[in-house]
Amino acid sequence: MIAQMKKESLYVRIAKVMEEQIASKTLKLGDKLPSIRTIQKTYNVSLNTVKQAYLELESKSLIEPRAKSGYFVSMASMRKFPLPSVGELKTTAIEKHPEDLISKVFHTLEDPRITQFSLGVPDKNLLPTAKLNKGVINMVRKWPEIGTTYEPMQGNINLRRAVAKWSLVLEGKLNEDDFVTTSGAMNAIFNCLMAVTKPGDTVAIETPVYFGTLQIIKSLGLKAIEIPTHPVTGVDLEALKKVLPRINACCFVTNFSNPLGCLMPDEHKKELVRMLTEQDIPLIEDDLYGNLFFGASRPKPCKYYDEAGIVMWCGSVSKTLAPGYRVGWVAPGKYKEQVIRQKFLHTISSPSLYQEVVADFMEHGRYDHHLRTIRSKLYTNNLKYQGAIEAYFPKNTKIAQPQGGFMLWLELDQKIDTAELYDRALQQNISFAPGRMFSQYDQYNNCMRLNYGLEWNTKLDTDLKRLGKILKTAL
Amino acid sequence: MIAQMKKESLYVRIAKVMEEQIASKTLKLGDKLPSIRTIQKTYNVSLNTVKQAYLELESKSLIEPRAKSGYFVSMASMRKFPLPSVGELKTTAIEKHPEDLISKVFHTLEDPRITQFSLGVPDKNLLPTAKLNKGVINMVRKWPEIGTTYEPMQGNINLRRAVAKWSLVLEGKLNEDDFVTTSGAMNAIFNCLMAVTKPGDTVAIETPVYFGTLQIIKSLGLKAIEIPTHPVTGVDLEALKKVLPRINACCFVTNFSNPLGCLMPDEHKKELVRMLTEQDIPLIEDDLYGNLFFGASRPKPCKYYDEAGIVMWCGSVSKTLAPGYRVGWVAPGKYKEQVIRQKFLHTISSPSLYQEVVADFMEHGRYDHHLRTIRSKLYTNNLKYQGAIEAYFPKNTKIAQPQGGFMLWLELDQKIDTAELYDRALQQNISFAPGRMFSQYDQYNNCMRLNYGLEWNTKLDTDLKRLGKILKTAL
Repeated sequence: MIAQMKKESLYVRIAKVMEEQIASKTLKLGDKLPSIRTIQKTYNVSLNTVKQAYLELESKSLIEPRAKSGYFVSMASMRKFPLPSVGELKTTAIEKHPEDLISKVFHTLEDPRITQFSLGVPDKNLLPTAKLNKGVINMVRKWPEIGTTYEPMQGNINLRRAVAKWSLVLEGKLNEDDFVTTSGAMNAIFNCLMAVTKPGDTVAIETPVYFGTLQIIKSLGLKAIEIPTHPVTGVDLEALKKVLPRINACCFVTNFSNPLGCLMPDEHKKELVRMLTEQDIPLIEDDLYGNLFFGASRPKPCKYYDEAGIVMWCGSVSKTLAPGYRVGWVAPGKYKEQVIRQKFLHTISSPSLYQEVVADFMEHGRYDHHLRTIRSKLYTNNLKYQGAIEAYFPKNTKIAQPQGGFMLWLELDQKIDTAELYDRALQQNISFAPGRMFSQYDQYNNCMRLNYGLEWNTKLDTDLKRLGKILKTAL
Repeated sequence: MIAQMKKESLYVRIAKVMEEQIASKTLKLGDKLPSIRTIQKTYNVSLNTVKQAYLELESKSLIEPRAKSGYFVSMASMRKFPLPSVGELKTTAIEKHPEDLISKVFHTLEDPRITQFSLGVPDKNLLPTAKLNKGVINMVRKWPEIGTTYEPMQGNINLRRAVAKWSLVLEGKLNEDDFVTTSGAMNAIFNCLMAVTKPGDTVAIETPVYFGTLQIIKSLGLKAIEIPTHPVTGVDLEALKKVLPRINACCFVTNFSNPLGCLMPDEHKKELVRMLTEQDIPLIEDDLYGNLFFGASRPKPCKYYDEAGIVMWCGSVSKTLAPGYRVGWVAPGKYKEQVIRQKFLHTISSPSLYQEVVADFMEHGRYDHHLRTIRSKLYTNNLKYQGAIEAYFPKNTKIAQPQGGFMLWLELDQKIDTAELYDRALQQNISFAPGRMFSQYDQYNNCMRLNYGLEWNTKLDTDLKRLGKILKTAL
């Protein structure tokens, strides 16, 4: 596909062999894979090459490591349902924004009787509320003036320092001066778009894409091009290349995009940054799910490969720790001054209290501890959902293979209109996000997004069963 | 000037007579005015007419009430220096935005050694920090999940209810459903502009105008027309009328504008709303200083006269209670749905904690109590500043007559360039806001804005003396 990738590297070839063995059930669910040393000797390659091959398989959720016992064939490799299809590159289709549908779904989010499969955040039972509240009380006592003064324009220094230190994945490439704090990641993206585009410009996004990103782009008088996105490997770089001359900025969720849950492989990230650097096109990288990985390690963001400063790396704690805190940040590369200016214009400053609480939470290892816990719960939930869907949903359902995050994308029979079914499900106190919400075109009508960041229990299982029944009845 | 005002009403005539008596020193500083009954009998008019006449004089800071003893000639009536001049209506002048100057001034705001006459918020010593912190702790204990969930799109219900109840000046015309909460007033204005304009549109603003408003307008690709603004009565409606056909929205601070401190009289407010209603032009009314009045009662906003829903009434606690909380709101009239949509797009939601704390503070009368205290301090400071400036500044200084808020606008000798003097003052650890910051055109170079919301002490007096000396040396 891409020049460098044509001469297939060794590790890819080794990974492919094992992938075929898993597909043909030569290696079955739960089987232990040969040790790294065994493979090394078999193929006469370096230890590193084998490790890379295993990482590749792991990023596809085909195998999973177990502490001190090696790698095993994973549950996800045993999927019964195929992957959803890849969206098409449309540049002339008629735009029709699903505003009404989005409003409808959002207006039911506050009803506690409804099972909120449509929710965009993890269930509050998965969040360390008591510890956070303790942090708030300590901080108010420690720093009484915290609420009455404005913070520096670039944002709270302790949060910037904590985020920089804690961003190990960047291997020390960023320091506190590289970050600007924002009111959540969405506000970071807004400030980035304001900093690098002007009305009439065109922004490349994924398809299906998080509707909030699409709405914000349209509200600024920008055009959006939806780039076909593979449910496992993310944005199709070949397709992006075709429209690159018309693009003024890209806005991608490279790690566990919403709604697909896909993960762009390192090679693609590197190539994407190279392509965009060549044309001096800024990449707004929305990395708000990156820490909710199911693989062995936190995936790298594109920012890691960014030498020219074109990547604006956005993050937040809204999807992992405290949605209501509105604490986010961005490392805007060479656009830093413009982003600070935009932030100042639209919000003057962000409240210091929650920034200090989050900084303290990171600083003392509590955030990492919490992330380990929530990741393990989300991974288990993901498997439970997949199992329930395979058991209860129509046989021709297609299902994504999230490698992190808590969003599950389903593609159903062509005859099904999930926007219509939404009302029927709501009558049974079940809410989901209809697929139509995730595009500016009239597509994904037979798709839906489910949140598996809810606490698993028998009621949830029953609700998935009831949802499956609604779908079967509709066919 | 305006049709209805030509046939001068009785109360205006009575007020004028007394104003002349004060000007001619027939009535001297501290003199008690005749009682309301006496005037009633003298002119054979209703009690109400006399009360209105006294209110008129009070709104001009010429007289002030003292509890149970009647009205007295006020300090402000004894001013030695004249009022600053009124800006001109320019529609063809060359725009040149004072970005660099604004950045320079803002970058020194964090230095504790500097006397911050340039600050845009009251000194933290004037704010009830301890009480607010107690509120935070109580709220976290009372409602543990407060930080981990998103609030409704329209904003925290308790804050909306408290603001509606507490907005007595509206006489019950608004309820909780009319309000949308925002991250401070600036964010409210941003959401309003996004809701009612599109790039290329033109917005009418005051001149001199708060630079933040100007910047936000430009950042959205909008044009601004600066409407001449009188230092006592605010926007010149005749001038506005001339450009009305070209205007898509107005954005005015009707009560104690920043930097002039002027107060639009009720008659003007009524006429402004009438004019704009006729043309269906939305008015974004930034009323963030309205509760810091020096007169007898809280001035009405234009919203009070708004029958058609064209006024978007914005408020916050940033200038009165807790700048760092970023708690604001807007009653957007008929544009409510659009404003909610914009809010959702750009910030998803605002943190609930501070909204609850402010709501509780209002609900239990603590906010009103605090406002009484801070108003009295600001009024005293205003007089002290005026006295110091009359004593220390060049004789041809012109000085505004704020009727509320904490901003003081000075016009100095034509030869003085305050942007240049800024550096010299900074060397002596004194910062002020150069006049050039308050326009998109090359004007107000001989003006400056001082914040009198700092705690008064001998150091402050000395600093004003040193600032006066710098000015005298420059001449």
